[in-house]
Amino acid sequence: MSEITRNNFEQKYPKIVESLRNAVFIAVDTEFTGLLSDPDFKASLFDTSNERYDKLRRSVQHFIIMQIGICTFRFVQDKNKYEASRYTFYIFPKSFASVDNKFMCQASSLEFLCQHDFDFNKFVYEGVPYLNQQQEAHLRKQLNEGSLFRHLERTISLENERSIQLVCSRVAEWSASAVLGDVLELSDMDVCKGEKPLAYVVHKELRQRFPNVWTFPDSGFIRVQKISEEERKAREGSKDENESLEADLMDSLLGFSRLFKLLVELQKPIVGHNFLMDLMIMYSQFHEQLPTQLSDFKEKIHRMFPVIYDTKYLSFEIKKIMKREGMWESNILSHLYHFFKEGRGRYFVLFSPVIEIKNEAEIHDPQMKDQEVRADESGRNQDLDVKFHEAGWDSFCTGYCFIRLAHIFAHVTLDCVSEGRMLTSRELLSGAASKKNCVNLIRASVSHICLDGPDPASEKPQWIHVQTKTFQAIDISKVAELFARFGAVDVKPFTRFRALVAVGNCRSASDIVTQFQKHRDFNVSYYHPIRHSPVLRGFLWTGLVVSGGIFACLLFKEFDRITKS
Amino acid sequence: MSEITRNNFEQKYPKIVESLRNAVFIAVDTEFTGLLSDPDFKASLFDTSNERYDKLRRSVQHFIIMQIGICTFRFVQDKNKYEASRYTFYIFPKSFASVDNKFMCQASSLEFLCQHDFDFNKFVYEGVPYLNQQQEAHLRKQLNEGSLFRHLERTISLENERSIQLVCSRVAEWSASAVLGDVLELSDMDVCKGEKPLAYVVHKELRQRFPNVWTFPDSGFIRVQKISEEERKAREGSKDENESLEADLMDSLLGFSRLFKLLVELQKPIVGHNFLMDLMIMYSQFHEQLPTQLSDFKEKIHRMFPVIYDTKYLSFEIKKIMKREGMWESNILSHLYHFFKEGRGRYFVLFSPVIEIKNEAEIHDPQMKDQEVRADESGRNQDLDVKFHEAGWDSFCTGYCFIRLAHIFAHVTLDCVSEGRMLTSRELLSGAASKKNCVNLIRASVSHICLDGPDPASEKPQWIHVQTKTFQAIDISKVAELFARFGAVDVKPFTRFRALVAVGNCRSASDIVTQFQKHRDFNVSYYHPIRHSPVLRGFLWTGLVVSGGIFACLLFKEFDRITKS
Repeated sequence: MSEITRNNFEQKYPKIVESLRNAVFIAVDTEFTGLLSDPDFKASLFDTSNERYDKLRRSVQHFIIMQIGICTFRFVQDKNKYEASRYTFYIFPKSFASVDNKFMCQASSLEFLCQHDFDFNKFVYEGVPYLNQQQEAHLRKQLNEGSLFRHLERTISLENERSIQLVCSRVAEWSASAVLGDVLELSDMDVCKGEKPLAYVVHKELRQRFPNVWTFPDSGFIRVQKISEEERKAREGSKDENESLEADLMDSLLGFSRLFKLLVELQKPIVGHNFLMDLMIMYSQFHEQLPTQLSDFKEKIHRMFPVIYDTKYLSFEIKKIMKREGMWESNILSHLYHFFKEGRGRYFVLFSPVIEIKNEAEIHDPQMKDQEVRADESGRNQDLDVKFHEAGWDSFCTGYCFIRLAHIFAHVTLDCVSEGRMLTSRELLSGAASKKNCVNLIRASVSHICLDGPDPASEKPQWIHVQTKTFQAIDISKVAELFARFGAVDVKPFTRFRALVAVGNCRSASDIVTQFQKHRDFNVSYYHPIRHSPVLRGFLWTGLVVSGGIFACLLFKEFDRITKS
Repeated sequence: MSEITRNNFEQKYPKIVESLRNAVFIAVDTEFTGLLSDPDFKASLFDTSNERYDKLRRSVQHFIIMQIGICTFRFVQDKNKYEASRYTFYIFPKSFASVDNKFMCQASSLEFLCQHDFDFNKFVYEGVPYLNQQQEAHLRKQLNEGSLFRHLERTISLENERSIQLVCSRVAEWSASAVLGDVLELSDMDVCKGEKPLAYVVHKELRQRFPNVWTFPDSGFIRVQKISEEERKAREGSKDENESLEADLMDSLLGFSRLFKLLVELQKPIVGHNFLMDLMIMYSQFHEQLPTQLSDFKEKIHRMFPVIYDTKYLSFEIKKIMKREGMWESNILSHLYHFFKEGRGRYFVLFSPVIEIKNEAEIHDPQMKDQEVRADESGRNQDLDVKFHEAGWDSFCTGYCFIRLAHIFAHVTLDCVSEGRMLTSRELLSGAASKKNCVNLIRASVSHICLDGPDPASEKPQWIHVQTKTFQAIDISKVAELFARFGAVDVKPFTRFRALVAVGNCRSASDIVTQFQKHRDFNVSYYHPIRHSPVLRGFLWTGLVVSGGIFACLLFKEFDRITKS
């Protein structure tokens, strides 16, 4: 498996860049430190797209991605095959000088990751660094001004200060007897454990302390050379000398952000599953603070990634077209993947391409086969489930499902279905083109957000109006509980004696209205804006929403996660 | 080493309680997720005790303790010996029902812990749970009302829901053929991996789903028994039946908070090193939200822990009394510990007691001895330093230094110095009694906070007033840089052309004023409130403070940490 940490990032970087450049499309998945920074930001069926964006924005700004999965898919036309290269990056906001990120963790989210064997030590000890645009600009400015370590900005650990002092002593000793032209080689590993930011500080420190030497970065070494006063002056004045050191430093600190920039630059189709939160958190973490308005976000993200597909949205859309029962258990990623992998989905349409993971032997791993067999026998995905929520694996599965889903779309919408031939990758993508830039919304008044146009109208049923028959204030928890068995419902207070209920689908809504027609305690009917306009204007809707629902009730906090998977 | 995690907490609990009860005093140390939630809350020499408390409060409320060290010290009079039992607890805010803590992490703080080999997996996977008072009260209320799992409050992971479904199927199958009195035993480990909160849900679920059975908690088992309708009714009505299940659940969820409550109940002397932040974060994490006013905090913490000693404060005070040079390298914990451990400090006064770690073999570990020897030879503490910042070890060292420091105080202040005899533990404590409830403040206008009385007057030098001679606005960074070589300084703008400087000690202040008397760019003098009253009233002081200082400049972000150690 291609697990990328601080230790192998630079080494693997060229290979990763190559896979990104060769890809027809790129699938992405992220694992983060939390979902909900405040209970008020809980998803509700009342939420419009703007409201949902606002809730997510206020949560997302506190959390960070700990692991990001990127899977590139390259098309080999003559074999009708997609070659996938998947990478799992651990990401950690390395502190340096004025950069010292703070981020929030949510207990339940970390516990969730525990169930999927997440390695928190790898995250903190080995995470690849990153900078957002603002941090990058600020550091570059400080480097230009030479103010990076002015006053208190030099933030070096005690241990590292000790290494620096040791190196300085060593150079001082050598320098005492060295003559012009003499060279001392210091191993990068010894002096700064191969860490570029520390190497930068060592170079700067030595140049400052020893006016008769110059330091040269060399592969694996810091080369210290005794030079003449004139040469020293020339080197100090040379723009290149300083810039190469600083470029190295910035490259190292930018870390994953370099790949993010490349993703933006390449403008290739990006695929995710239930992708909105991933997009928002990536934007906030690697790019800039999220805009307060959804419209601004849409405009900006569309400029960055002009073609985005959300497999969760696609899977709902295909169900509409196919109108078949029993297609897949649910729209969560693992169920979708198994449907297409196990057989029924595999031969859903003719000439479905082969999909192979290229950069690992795992696909031919007997243990893996065994797992799949076991999954087949039990009809469940318990064993493979362990693998899910490892970001690299999830990104592969997302891309895998995307190919299968797009292939179906293409056959439905394109002429080639009658021609009975294999599809080019262009045809595959254009098959799904009408669904591009639509990202799924869970538990909201609309099903999705259009990143490149106006959002769709709500297809949810009319709200339901509930009024107590008694003279007691309405208990919205009680209402939520009462309606929970009809599926997903959210309840919010309307006036003192009345509440409004948003219901997940029309059938549930009609069932509720029918069955509660003659309820002892409540009058229940569809909400009518004029008829139900509150007599007492003084009562305002509060933001409080209480939810119910057969499944939701069992699995509330998992909800986002599951639908996300 | 007594490392306490979720896995052995219950087993070790009685032993820990016993050591706490037998202790003469208890030393505490904590490791947390961050220090500074916002750069504005940085410590400054301008800070009064109220201002410092406010800054710390606003930072501390976001962070949590990940590891807490508790070391108890029992006195064995006939051997003139203190027996220490040290425990390192990993702490994690387990989520359950409505409890789902959010906490902040600071990148540099986590990186600092990496240098001391902190195990983040142990923190998340095995941390002992805790609840603050509000959470405990809320859960108890929900348990009483039976509303714990109403509407969406049931927050169970998918995996756990699966286990519950499996158990239910098993009971359903058994129930079909079971007759009155039949018993089915379900292993706790199988069903809920020994987790009490999950066991509670299983009991509740089985009792709700199967009206003809009752469940009994048994050691290691959930015992399901088929019972008659009458018995079932009786059991349902029985207060005891429900309460024992709930007591178990609450005990498990309270976790470490039970020990914190015991600490409060015992009212024994509590010792820490640079203890203010530890006290505040413990208060906030295990007790309740920190009061906004320092005076309220002082009153409340004093009621909880009437006798508190801060070894950092004590070490400064002893230096004042002893007035000797070269006592210890600095007041950081590792330096103090080595001073007393290595020899010179060990025999500083007569009849110094023996201090032994009781609950581990480590003190006799040859490797450890070896490390100490190496530390001696090099005159540095590099090897042992690795051990520091493991909370249990630090709490031991804190208690160790406390005994040595208190012993010196006792000999200086008590008559027994002339009697030439060993001290009782009561005498030892009373020796330091005049220094109790004073906790150290780093980089502030006062040296400490008195928890049981008014805070001391500032002993810092008068502020320094700096005015530009040019017509350019004053650059406070430049001023800070200019004065940095004189030691710790903090600079804040006063008017457009003037700044105020707070200096760490009187000597530095006088040096600055002397040396800058005839500076080209600045007029520098001691600040005089009337003479220097700003002509332009419109200019207000801003909160911005820029700092300098020879040591601080090198080690800014480490500063708090080091002084803390």
